Amino acid sequence: MISIMGHDNRLAEYEILPHILERWSPRSMTGDPILRDDLFAIFEAARFAPSAYNEQPWRFVFALSGTPNFDRFKAILVQYNWDWAKKASALLIVAAKDTFSHNGEPNKWSFYDCGCACGFLALEATRRGYVTHTMAGFSAEEAIEKLDIPEGYTPIVAIAIGKIAPRDFLPDELQEREFPSPRKPQSDFIFRGSFSGE
Amino acid sequence: MISIMGHDNRLAEYEILPHILERWSPRSMTGDPILRDDLFAIFEAARFAPSAYNEQPWRFVFALSGTPNFDRFKAILVQYNWDWAKKASALLIVAAKDTFSHNGEPNKWSFYDCGCACGFLALEATRRGYVTHTMAGFSAEEAIEKLDIPEGYTPIVAIAIGKIAPRDFLPDELQEREFPSPRKPQSDFIFRGSFSGE
Repeated sequence: MISIMGHDNRLAEYEILPHILERWSPRSMTGDPILRDDLFAIFEAARFAPSAYNEQPWRFVFALSGTPNFDRFKAILVQYNWDWAKKASALLIVAAKDTFSHNGEPNKWSFYDCGCACGFLALEATRRGYVTHTMAGFSAEEAIEKLDIPEGYTPIVAIAIGKIAPRDFLPDELQEREFPSPRKPQSDFIFRGSFSGE
Repeated sequence: MISIMGHDNRLAEYEILPHILERWSPRSMTGDPILRDDLFAIFEAARFAPSAYNEQPWRFVFALSGTPNFDRFKAILVQYNWDWAKKASALLIVAAKDTFSHNGEPNKWSFYDCGCACGFLALEATRRGYVTHTMAGFSAEEAIEKLDIPEGYTPIVAIAIGKIAPRDFLPDELQEREFPSPRKPQSDFIFRGSFSGE
């Protein structure tokens, strides 16, 4: 068993890429600015994700802490998330292009491909000493309006990127949730031959 | 600019995790067996992906080359894919659980989360000297039937994992496609502040 950071929830049964095991989703962030090179390297990692028909359906709209753009996220995120995410270095909305560019047909892998790109983004952030926290809790309508997201694109998640801060910088109720989440054993999601084992 | 393997299509503008840049989707595979430890470490990487409400909606049904389970994929994959993927070391179907376990509501991030898990899987495979190739070209109906995928789960993609073989092991028409695909520049998918730049 390989652990990191003394967290029992990050015990791997097999040796894996350290950045995968180290990555988790803290909420306590310092509010420090992100280095330009780090930010664009993090996007660069997303750029090299695979996608169906190489569509690359991911779009990222970002805002840096301390800018008017950043404050737009106050209306986009749910209050619960804004309360901690305002200390992120950067906030972004991930939107998927709904159709394939080569034929205009609906792309049913657009969310799947965006998920892969954001996974690569999170690993590059981890590698560079940042943390990421992905949020489902935001208003797609507000994101579309405030960020001028055009028709044909669907906002999927918001992501906070920042530098980790001590746990006790958070309000009490969030401190209780500030730990890496556990994972199911492989036997719950890996099936040999068939789902029923036949 | 950082390149790998002499492929002009793998030029990064920023320095990123090497496994991300090295990963591409060859079709020419040797048919060699995969080591047990490698296979389960590859799944272990997927296990540590983040997910909405920590649902971990990903399910993997796998088959190893040279087993009767593997031959079931002949009916599942489209002919075009089976023709090369039969030389994979392992084939798998990725299925998403459609609803959240905590409340039974539809999980609209299930594909997104599966994409991230499969991205981690692909990087761990790359790190261990394997290649992966994700396929949209398969029959969900055949996968459901042949692999006993229950109601409430949606097959998303098939993935081939294997050892790379020389390009000229492929039929002529596939040799022409055997190179890493290009990527859009960041300016096509990264937007500061808003999609319209306002």
